This record gives sequence, structure tokens and C-alpha cells, in this order.
Amino acid sequence: MSEATQTLEGWYSLHDFRLIDWTMWKTADESTRREAREELAAYLAKWQGIEDRKEGSTATYSIVGQKADFMFMHLRETLEELNDLENDFNKSTFASFLIPAYSYVSVVELSSYLGKPGEDPMQNPEIVARLKPALPKTKHICFYPMNKRREGNDNWYMLDMEARKNMMRSHGMIGRSYAGKVKQIITGSVGLDDWEWGVTLFADDALQFKKLVYEMRFDEVSARYGEFGDFYVGNLLDQALFNDLLRI
Amino acid sequence: MSEATQTLEGWYSLHDFRLIDWTMWKTADESTRREAREELAAYLAKWQGIEDRKEGSTATYSIVGQKADFMFMHLRETLEELNDLENDFNKSTFASFLIPAYSYVSVVELSSYLGKPGEDPMQNPEIVARLKPALPKTKHICFYPMNKRREGNDNWYMLDMEARKNMMRSHGMIGRSYAGKVKQIITGSVGLDDWEWGVTLFADDALQFKKLVYEMRFDEVSARYGEFGDFYVGNLLDQALFNDLLRI
Amino acid sequence: MSEATQTLEGWYSLHDFRLIDWTMWKTADESTRREAREELAAYLAKWQGIEDRKEGSTATYSIVGQKADFMFMHLRETLEELNDLENDFNKSTFASFLIPAYSYVSVVELSSYLGKPGEDPMQNPEIVARLKPALPKTKHICFYPMNKRREGNDNWYMLDMEARKNMMRSHGMIGRSYAGKVKQIITGSVGLDDWEWGVTLFADDALQFKKLVYEMRFDEVSARYGEFGDFYVGNLLDQALFNDLLRI
Amino acid sequence: MSEATQTLEGWYSLHDFRLIDWTMWKTADESTRREAREELAAYLAKWQGIEDRKEGSTATYSIVGQKADFMFMHLRETLEELNDLENDFNKSTFASFLIPAYSYVSVVELSSYLGKPGEDPMQNPEIVARLKPALPKTKHICFYPMNKRREGNDNWYMLDMEARKNMMRSHGMIGRSYAGKVKQIITGSVGLDDWEWGVTLFADDALQFKKLVYEMRFDEVSARYGEFGDFYVGNLLDQALFNDLLRI
Amino acid sequence: MSEATQTLEGWYSLHDFRLIDWTMWKTADESTRREAREELAAYLAKWQGIEDRKEGSTATYSIVGQKADFMFMHLRETLEELNDLENDFNKSTFASFLIPAYSYVSVVELSSYLGKPGEDPMQNPEIVARLKPALPKTKHICFYPMNKRREGNDNWYMLDMEARKNMMRSHGMIGRSYAGKVKQIITGSVGLDDWEWGVTLFADDALQFKKLVYEMRFDEVSARYGEFGDFYVGNLLDQALFNDLLRI
Repeated sequence: MSEATQTLEGWYSLHDFRLIDWTMWKTADESTRREAREELAAYLAKWQGIEDRKEGSTATYSIVGQKADFMFMHLRETLEELNDLENDFNKSTFASFLIPAYSYVSVVELSSYLGKPGEDPMQNPEIVARLKPALPKTKHICFYPMNKRREGNDNWYMLDMEARKNMMRSHGMIGRSYAGKVKQIITGSVGLDDWEWGVTLFADDALQFKKLVYEMRFDEVSARYGEFGDFYVGNLLDQALFNDLLRI
Repeated sequence: MSEATQTLEGWYSLHDFRLIDWTMWKTADESTRREAREELAAYLAKWQGIEDRKEGSTATYSIVGQKADFMFMHLRETLEELNDLENDFNKSTFASFLIPAYSYVSVVELSSYLGKPGEDPMQNPEIVARLKPALPKTKHICFYPMNKRREGNDNWYMLDMEARKNMMRSHGMIGRSYAGKVKQIITGSVGLDDWEWGVTLFADDALQFKKLVYEMRFDEVSARYGEFGDFYVGNLLDQALFNDLLRI
Repeated sequence: MSEATQTLEGWYSLHDFRLIDWTMWKTADESTRREAREELAAYLAKWQGIEDRKEGSTATYSIVGQKADFMFMHLRETLEELNDLENDFNKSTFASFLIPAYSYVSVVELSSYLGKPGEDPMQNPEIVARLKPALPKTKHICFYPMNKRREGNDNWYMLDMEARKNMMRSHGMIGRSYAGKVKQIITGSVGLDDWEWGVTLFADDALQFKKLVYEMRFDEVSARYGEFGDFYVGNLLDQALFNDLLRI
Repeated sequence: MSEATQTLEGWYSLHDFRLIDWTMWKTADESTRREAREELAAYLAKWQGIEDRKEGSTATYSIVGQKADFMFMHLRETLEELNDLENDFNKSTFASFLIPAYSYVSVVELSSYLGKPGEDPMQNPEIVARLKPALPKTKHICFYPMNKRREGNDNWYMLDMEARKNMMRSHGMIGRSYAGKVKQIITGSVGLDDWEWGVTLFADDALQFKKLVYEMRFDEVSARYGEFGDFYVGNLLDQALFNDLLRI
Repeated sequence: MSEATQTLEGWYSLHDFRLIDWTMWKTADESTRREAREELAAYLAKWQGIEDRKEGSTATYSIVGQKADFMFMHLRETLEELNDLENDFNKSTFASFLIPAYSYVSVVELSSYLGKPGEDPMQNPEIVARLKPALPKTKHICFYPMNKRREGNDNWYMLDMEARKNMMRSHGMIGRSYAGKVKQIITGSVGLDDWEWGVTLFADDALQFKKLVYEMRFDEVSARYGEFGDFYVGNLLDQALFNDLLRI
């Protein structure tokens, strides 16, 4: 039996992808659309307030292509808060113009222990800031879920911890070489959703997503052990841009 | 030919996941919604009565994310009772606001014989209690189906019983180290549904699902032989919380 | 080139799984529902007549869980009869309340030649009875399709006939040990549907499905060479029970 | 690098599978249904005229089971003709009662060069007849798409041409042993649709599909290198039978 | 760790496949259809203007078979422009008659560095022309996404760069032998969509797609390392042909 890597967990996360039913939206009367836009504005303001009080964080991005029209990434302290948030939103007038596209449940995770011996890591402000982060507001987002492979000779979970550590260190060095260009939030989803991790990347230049993920693919940890789900890429939606999106 | 592990079976199980059609629910008139809520309350009360008489058990949880809005896990003595229960529910007014999301048919199973030699295990109250359990009412639930792998050199069913027993013992020890934190109900579904087993975990702290499943993944029996289906995670829905969920 | 096993074929088979659109059914007026119930009764009677005249056979079962609400298994002499039967049923009022869930086209098959040398097996009443059977009316049914694997070192079709025969013999012995508990009808579907065989099991105790399929899974022919599709399990629906199912 | 097999191509092919929306069809008024039947008759007559002028060929079959209600197989000289044909049909009144089920785009292909050295094969009437055939009007049809496998040691495209030729020769001998019982049309779809080939079999006895495909499965080229898609089986639909199918 | 191949990126690309809801289109009144056709004409003219100003390029093709009725391939400088373009189109009257079928997000890519040492490749007009191309207007288009395989001994990303270069050179030679017959645009999608590359082929003779892709399949880089998604094939749609397609 191989030893499990130690992890620290922070806020729970819900990635929530939606399509807009444009035909319904266009045929609604303007007063209904206004109500829906005002509701959305109220939600965005409420979620901003939660972020301001450091009780959670929400990122809002459009999605390019037919997979979704936009997505929310919500971070909250508990699964109950996330569930209340989605149920509340689902009952809104705005939500009645939306079609569910995909969602992902996970929890912010740090895989290497950063604190000092004898110290409670949750008392270390740097660690807490990474486990309960304010989500970046970069121009672009990229999300994909992934597994570590367990097939024949390529079985991550049968490797000893030293081998895994060395591979993850090399992997991390590629990530660090993109510092300032790509910010990455890893959320763990073993026992919570269908893949083992969700990777959410934030960048002002979307090409950096391609360069980072492509470079990493040649790294043994990805080349031999990485299994990837669907990729979603999008553009920042602030209140004004969301209004533009909804303008008929 | 390898020898099959001996198993004991108890109550049949139906996991029943549903989405709420919020648009229909909101546009229904209040009297219809009241009727639906009263019907639901009557079902919950009826199922509680069955549990009180030890003729079955039902757990009710919301589900986080778009996979479902809530789920019932029903345990009953026969497949006929489960089928009558679901058909009866499907004809209700409340069900006309629901969209099927996923279901799973299985039977509570103990894989190692716990009774004494010469004893009928079904006369042993401890065993019967595990085969016909009152489902826990913890804050959170996690459900996933799984197979034992049969691929190339990783073929569980070609191992001799001793090898399987040793691996399952180590697996069980991880499970036991979570005693008091996670309660696990294994249901067998070979010949009943698409995977070989369903795993239902109950915990007051949802993070324990992640920690348990992740730690087990490094265990050889999971690392080499485990194949996992979709994961569902949710929060307890008692009568009051279900009413909150349905409030417009 | 490996030699193909000799097979005998009898009646063609159509497994036809359907969901009931309960909302439509409930909102239909009672006269339409009565018409639909009478139509269904007429079909069941007609199919019983065909069975009485030994021109075919039909089994009717409910299905537990969301995969389907009920299924018909029809055996007929020709594909034309099966196609006429399904088209005729599809045009009925009752069918307008149904949603297709799954279907399977195959033909009753005996894989080992049971007749005597120089004898036309179709003149042997025992063989004909197995190729053109009256379907059992047990309390429960189980259906699943399957393939023999062709992957790397686990390639059934590259084995010589002797090896295949030995494995099938051991497999058959497990089946025979369930005589009186489980009746099995094998239908071949190579060239007719997406899997190579359909397995339909009949039993009065549904647990025997689990025990039989689980025990067989440790048999080399299943462990190394079996690939299984979705499993459907259900309860007998006679005319009275079907009326109960449809009662609002 | 292995050498590609030489192929000759003839007419482009579109397999077009459709479901009938029976509820819509039954609730339409009789005049609309008459218009739709007359349109269909006009299409069938028009396509027959094209076949009579040897400018293409069309086969029309019902499909058994829920995958489709009927299918057209159209052969035409160009992709433009096929596209015009399907778009024209899609705009008809009859098509508004149909639901798309599956389609396949390919081109009639002969994989071994049959002409004499120095001769233009397209001047050889026997070859042209096979590349631009009038589709058989047998009682039954069977269609499935397939790939040659490229996995580990079973990689068809890494074999040298001699090995591939020998295997295909043995394969062809099985096919020839069914001469007079099964007629086979191979259409190539590399670069045109999701699989590499479409196989369309025609026979008066549907059991011959099963016997042929099963016997071939033991042939090394299928056993080790064949990957098969979904199978569709059906019965001949002439004008009278199509009218029967549509009769309410 | 293997070294990543250097790539140059140009315009972002959106392949946008749509089905036409013919029943809705036929039942709309003629004035609505006229409005929709005029809108479409305005979009096509606008996109042509962008192409004339070398700020992007758009190709418009019908698709043969049921996968889609037509597709746009849009090239633009930024993801924001692509997203605005699709959202704007989705709000049009014409779009309300369309059903999304498939989309693909990628970026034009050159995998080998063509510039001279010490030179900024984006100052080399030949390179810029290939990275920001005016899309061909050939009679036919073929699109498919693909991955390089990472399975067991066939792991592209574990090969050293020399081995990869040699295989890609042989691959490129096949491509060059089709010069004048097939024009190929490679778009990279690592980190942007579900596959690693999109391949878009343009030809006046659709058979050349089949011949090129089939010949390449015997090349080691495809035979051992190529994984292919769905294939779409279609015919050029200019303004007049698009009007024909929409004519009732």
C-alpha cells in the first residue's frame, strides 16, 4: 500500500455552467427581462458583498462556443451555503431563461504542507489566503477536470511517495515559470464529483493556457498519468459586460 | 476458476435522484403547489412509519450541483415494494414537477460472514441490523457505484480468494479508521444494475468523504482494481428543509 | 483462423422497454385512458392467443428504477412479424403515453448441437421447445446484453475451439447448479444488434440473479472474456398488475 | 511506414435513419397525412427514375426496434447531390413528422484493383457496375460501421501489406462462401464520417447476417483488428409496405 | 521530461455547427423568414468586410448527413471577438430557427519555426499569412479534432523530440504530396477545447479527403499515435447557395 499525499482543504467550490435560451429571452416581454436583469444585478452585488466580507468568492465568465454561455465559480465555507446559493438562484426569474450545461463540486486544496512543524496551518495567513482565496478577475478563465491514471504500468496510485513527489516537483516548476502570467486554483473532488481534481486557470492572455497545458503535457506526470475531461474557456463578465450579453 | 466470496443480503435498495423543473413549479398556481407539498409531507410521514415499524428505511438528501436536486434512498424487503413505492410516487402531483436524473437498484450486502459456525446468520441480531439498517440521518451523503476491474494483469476475478481477502482486509482497516466519522452502506448490484456495487457514505463533515475515498485510492484494491462511476454529494433534507427548498 | 462454434437458431426476439409519461397520462381525460387500457388489454389478449397457438411468446414485466417502467419480450417466427407488432403497437392510443427507453433485437440460440448424428435437430421436439419456447411467467426478470472480449491477451475469438468448449462447459455447470431457481434464455445478436448476445433470466427470487451472475463472474469465461452492457431487473406484470400500474 | 492499400471509389453514399413521431402523425388531420404520403410517393418515384437512368440508387427499409423506424440508403455521383436530396426531403411535409436517428456518409469502395495492367478500371464495365451499383431489393438489410484497430500489439496500420493481404484474402473467402445468400456493399468513410468503413449487407434470410458476421468474427482480421459500431437490421419497404406502415 | 515542440499561434478559431429546425422554419410566416434571410445576408456581408480588411476570415459550408445542416469557421484576433460574434448571431431572428450541433474553439498554429534566426517571425509576411489566413473557398470542407495518444507503449509525449520530428517530417511529406489538391489548416486547442488539435481540410474534390487521411493512417505518427474525433464533411455555401438551402 502506497502512502496518500497529505492535503489541506479550504472553501468548497461550485463551478456552474449555463446556456441561455435565447428564443425564450427574446420573446419575453421587456418588463420580464428587466426584472431578470435586476435580479441578476442583485445576485452579483450580494455575492460581491460576501467576497468583501471574506466569506466566499465568486467569479463570472462567459464561455466561448456552444458548451455554455457563461459560468459562475462560487467558493463558500460549506456545502450547505453552495446548495442554498444554487437553489436560490434556480428559483429566480433569470434562471427560468437558462439551461443547465455542466457543474462541478470540489474543494480548494493544497497538496503540500506549507506550514512550519508544530504550527496549525490554518493560523498561517499565507496558507489561509490560498485555501480561501478571492478569485482573480483576469480577462480569461480555463477550467478542466482531471484524474491521475491507474492503467497497467501507468498507475499513479501504485507509485511510492518519493516518485510522486519528484514528478510533482518538476510539474510545479513548469507552473511557477508561468508566474505572473497564469494563476492556478486546484480543487480536489475525490468523493465529491466524477473526476479527482478540477483545475481552474486565470490569465489575461488566453494563449498562456495553451502554452502552459501543452508544456505540461510533456512532463511525465501528465504524459503518463494525466487523464483530462472537457475544457471550458471564457472571457471575464463584469456587470456591464453581462448587461451587454443580455441586451436584445 | 476462482472461488466467489460469500455474501449475505438484506433489504433491497433504490437510490432515486430527481431534478426539480423550477419553471413549471414557479408557474403552477399556489393551490397546486400546496397540494404537492402536502403530498410530499404525506409520503415522508408514511415512509417514516415504515421505518418506525422496521419494515424499511428511507433517507432524503439534497444534491449539490446540476446532477440532481434531491435524492431518496429507499430500503425495502422486496423489489415489489420498491417498484410500488416508485410508481405510486411517480403518479403524485409533486412528481409531475420532477425530472428523473438517475437511479440505482441494489441490495444491502455483507461480504464477510460474521456469524458463528452452525448458526443461522439471520438469527444474529447484529448481522440483521446491518443487513436491514435504519439509514443514518447525518448532515451529508455521498453515493457512487463501482466495479472490480477485469483488465489485462489487473483482473480481480482471476485472483485467488486469499489474495482478495488480504486486500479487502487492508481496505477494511482504512474504513475502520474512519469509524465515528463516516458510516458506509455497501449494496451489491451484480445482476441488478449496471455496476457491481453501490457505495453510500454518511458523514456530518463532508470533507471526510474526500479524505476516506482519497486514502483508499492508494490501497491496492482501489488503485489496481477499482473502477468508479459518477459521484453524488448532498445535504440532509428533513421535512422543514424540504419545505425551504420548495418555497418560492 | 479459429473455428466458429455451431449454433441453432429459433424464434426472433424483441425486447422492448418503455417509460410512461405520467404527466400526460394523468392529464388525459378518463375516456382516453379507458380506451388506452382497453387497447392494451386487447394486445395482451392477442399476444396470449399467439402464444396459445405456439406461434410466438410474449413476457410482460415492470422495470425497477428510472431506466424503464415496463418491458415486453416478444418472440416471433420472423423479423417481419416483430416489426409489424411494434409498428402496430406504436400507433395505439396507449403508445402515445409512452417514451421509448431501450430495445434489443436478437434470435433464440442454442450454442451446442444437441441432436443425434444424421438427425435434423428441428425434428427433435426437445430442441424445438428450447428454440421456440413459451416464456416463463416467474415473478422476476433480468436482462443484459454481453460480448466476448477481444483485447490484447484476452481475445476469445483467437482461442481454439477446445479451450472455448472447456470454459463454456464450466460456465454451463454453474448455470445448471441454479436449475429450478433460474431459467435462462440466450439470444444471439451478432449482425442484429449492438452486442453479441442477450441474456434473459427468469426467477421467482430476484436474489438468485445476483448470486448466479456473481458466481459466474469468477469463472474464467466471464472474468477474462465477458463484457456486459446495462442490466434491467423487474417484476411480473399480468393483466391485473398492469391495470394497477396504470390506475390514477 | 506501412504502404496504404489501393482503393477505387464509386458513388457517394448516405445512409439516413429516421424515427416517426407517431403522436404527431396520428393527431395530424387526414388531408395533411394524405399530402405527406403523396409527397413520399413522389420522392420514391423520383429516386426510382434516377436509378432507372443509372444516375444513382436508393434502398428503403424499415428498421426493427427503437433505433429507427425506417432508413434510406442513397447512392449518388456527388456529395452535392446527396446534400440537395436530404435538404429537399427535410423540407417536405412528410419530414416534419420524422425525427433524425442516425446517418452515415461514405463512398462505395473496392479495395483490390480488379482491372488489367495498363487499363483504366473505370472503363471496365464489371468494375463500374460494382462501384456504381443498383442496390439489391432483398427482404432484409443489415448496416454497421467499423474500424481497423490500432491498439498495442493489435495495430492493423502497422502491419506490412503482405500480412494485411493474406488476412483480407481469408476474410474474403468467408464472404464468398455466402455468395447467393448475402450481398455486401463496402463503403469507405475515412475522412468522411466517424468510422473507417460502412458495411451494408443484403439478404432474403436475415439469419444469414448473423451466420456471416459470427463466422467472420473468428477470422484474425476481425478477431484482432475489427472494431464495430451499432448494428441496424430491417425489412424491405416498397411503396405498398411503406403505405401500410403509415396507415392509421 | 521530454521537450515540448515550439509553436507559433495566429488567429483564434471558432468552428460553429448548426442544425436547422425545418418545421419551425416552414411554419414561420414569410415576413419572418425574409427578415431572417436578410439578417443572414447582413452577417455574411459583415464577415466578408472583416475578411476584406484582413481582420479575420469566415468560411461557410453545408454539412452532409444529420450531424449538422451547416457550419461557420470563424477566425478572429481575440477570443472576445469570437464570443461577441457568436452571441450577436445567437440573438438574431435567424438563430431562433437553429439548433446548436457542435462547436470547437482553437487557434491557428504552426508547429515548426519557419523564420530565420534572430528574426521576429511575426514580421515575416509568409508566416503571418499562414497564421492569419484568408480561408479557402474550395467546393468541400472536412473537419475533425484529434489527439496524440498517451497509452502504454504508444505515448507520444514520452518520445524524445528527435523521434517526434522524424515522424512529423514523414507525415508532412504525405501532406505535401497533396499540394494543389488539399489545403490544410491546423488549429491547436490544448487548454482551449476537448481535443489537442483541430484539422480543417479544404478541397475541390472530396475524394482527396479520403485519400489523404487514409494514406496518413498508415504513417506511424497516425497509426500508433493518432486518436480521432468525429468527422464532418460538407459543401461550399455562398450567399446564393445559402438562399437555396433556405428556400421553401
